Amino acid sequence: MIYLDNAATTFPKPDEVYNEVLDCMKNYAANPGRGSYDMAIKASHKVTETREIIAKLFNISDLFNVIFTCSATEALNIGIKGLLKRKNHVITTCMEHNSVLRPISHLKKKGVECSIVRADQYGFISPKEIEKLIRSDTKLIVVNHVSNVTGTIQNIDEIGEIAHKNGVCFMVDAAQSAGVLNIDVEKSHIDMLAFPGHKGLMGPQGTGGLFIREGIKLTEFKSGGTGSNSFSVDQPEFLPDRFESGTLNTPGISGLNAGIKFINSIGLKNIEKHEMELTEYLIRNLKNKDYVKIYGHELQNRGAVVSFNIDGIDSSDVAAILNVKGICVRNGYHCAPLVHEIIGTKNRGTVRVSPGYFNTIEDIDKLIEAVVEINKGKI
Amino acid sequence: MIYLDNAATTFPKPDEVYNEVLDCMKNYAANPGRGSYDMAIKASHKVTETREIIAKLFNISDLFNVIFTCSATEALNIGIKGLLKRKNHVITTCMEHNSVLRPISHLKKKGVECSIVRADQYGFISPKEIEKLIRSDTKLIVVNHVSNVTGTIQNIDEIGEIAHKNGVCFMVDAAQSAGVLNIDVEKSHIDMLAFPGHKGLMGPQGTGGLFIREGIKLTEFKSGGTGSNSFSVDQPEFLPDRFESGTLNTPGISGLNAGIKFINSIGLKNIEKHEMELTEYLIRNLKNKDYVKIYGHELQNRGAVVSFNIDGIDSSDVAAILNVKGICVRNGYHCAPLVHEIIGTKNRGTVRVSPGYFNTIEDIDKLIEAVVEINKGKI
Repeated sequence: MIYLDNAATTFPKPDEVYNEVLDCMKNYAANPGRGSYDMAIKASHKVTETREIIAKLFNISDLFNVIFTCSATEALNIGIKGLLKRKNHVITTCMEHNSVLRPISHLKKKGVECSIVRADQYGFISPKEIEKLIRSDTKLIVVNHVSNVTGTIQNIDEIGEIAHKNGVCFMVDAAQSAGVLNIDVEKSHIDMLAFPGHKGLMGPQGTGGLFIREGIKLTEFKSGGTGSNSFSVDQPEFLPDRFESGTLNTPGISGLNAGIKFINSIGLKNIEKHEMELTEYLIRNLKNKDYVKIYGHELQNRGAVVSFNIDGIDSSDVAAILNVKGICVRNGYHCAPLVHEIIGTKNRGTVRVSPGYFNTIEDIDKLIEAVVEINKGKI
Repeated sequence: MIYLDNAATTFPKPDEVYNEVLDCMKNYAANPGRGSYDMAIKASHKVTETREIIAKLFNISDLFNVIFTCSATEALNIGIKGLLKRKNHVITTCMEHNSVLRPISHLKKKGVECSIVRADQYGFISPKEIEKLIRSDTKLIVVNHVSNVTGTIQNIDEIGEIAHKNGVCFMVDAAQSAGVLNIDVEKSHIDMLAFPGHKGLMGPQGTGGLFIREGIKLTEFKSGGTGSNSFSVDQPEFLPDRFESGTLNTPGISGLNAGIKFINSIGLKNIEKHEMELTEYLIRNLKNKDYVKIYGHELQNRGAVVSFNIDGIDSSDVAAILNVKGICVRNGYHCAPLVHEIIGTKNRGTVRVSPGYFNTIEDIDKLIEAVVEINKGKI
């Protein structure tokens, strides 16, 4: 089997991740932050250490500004719904995933106003277009770092600079970039960073997190027991407890810990380099076929996500035939509805290939070979 | 090490749980409900099968009325915050965990009204007292099935009957009962059932769920990608997708699947019998010591959670000394602030012992021996 759906979740994970999850479940999966016995303390230490390595990875100065969530989607909900109130204005883009568009759509019904910046044909957002839309009531700019459809990398440094200069909160959805691209919350003036644990960071599914810059006040999301201020029926105000009600996913977080240590041992630069070699090789070998249409910019400012179509064949049929050949890719709209207006795939979606660190050139060769065969088969 | 904190999370888990989590992570941890390739389909099947065995366990007729959450706390938030609107009235009890009290406290600030029923000295709630409080604007009754402090089992059949007769939605927090006591949503007229996956159901941490009776409309909680209706920026209305945005915790759900199969193979009755033998043995051997005060009813209608104190020693000191002796128990308020007014432990909390299926009489003997030693040591 050749797995090329790493934009959905990375697979396989490093062996260290499997081992740590198992070690945690068998030896220290007590309830962290609750009990005072050794095993519960070991669980707490592991959670804190994971917070610390995440903080270090994204250049976050205080590890307690990192909260654990069960997904990037939850992190985006906590940030977007927690910040925006009636009559606030938010700016976002047509490149967003439904994990951003749907929380905003929900808030629009409650009186939040929204401007959506249109991308160019490659999926690029102009930071200047964002700047033009800033109003006195603009409270938030939320931008997808790397598109899960076209792979387009947005210029978050420049957008962050604009947000910062205008006193607007800047949130980045790092679903496709965390663990692959270097992200520095200080350099890019990021006020909230939402990230999954189970994609580039190589942790298990059921993990994710949110960085919340000191001073940003968010409404509580999940209210409940935190093991702190137990005698109060009000949610604690302080981080991370304010957003970590309920028992944490300790085995998941332990696996995430091992995943991040793994990527640190390889080096982000090397991971990016490897994934981009595969991506460039794939694009080079697809673009020379006149029956293949690739979306997004071919090589400039892009991550390891490639969307394409074969003339005259539905994207779902392509994915189904690839599956029979043992190749796992995704087809359809990829939960990002607005980008399809830009790239002209509203009626057919795309076939999406997302190589990961564990893929090889041979995997890509087999995919290309299969594309050639599929095209032949249609005649 | 003797683990007696099963009310926080069960430990160890059955070997089948470890094996299934590992098998999932290594062999089928694709994103369920998204891709159409074999591995993603296998992940989806496992999730659906787990939904099915949960539905069967609680006598839920349609498996799609079971949604997965990352904890019982999340399930309670989805139900309570999703149902109650300004000017609605909710009835709950002083026996509740902060996972119920804090969401309600949050809603009170938004104009929801709340009545809290007081328990008797053993922690029992009188269904009649609940009935007396029902008003024309009462929308919800939410009750803890088994107290995580005193082990008190509430009469959910009678409360459900009252709620049903009065057309009020009935929600049960099954944090301490799911997987140990028989729960039948039809028999007890339960409209929403919140349960953790990592306690009695023997799954890994990071899992939980909520049953929502057909016809109950809840506001969306986490908005985002569901792999369904991808072209719409609005959250789907149908279950389970409405409440399952973001990548599910597939390895966790797979482990939960194995956990429930394990308890089904033993039989709930046998699990309850074993836990109650340990609990009764513990209580019998504590109550004959004049320096020990046990809270809650000694043997009637109780689950496997025992809170006590040793005269003249702080609960935290008792827990700390037990830890040195290799015995894991919890001390403090257990995230249930109001119950301490009832049992008179507002200033000291309790030492809580919660035996699980894997504990033995020898474990309890060692605990009792340690209690005797701790008492001797104080002189």
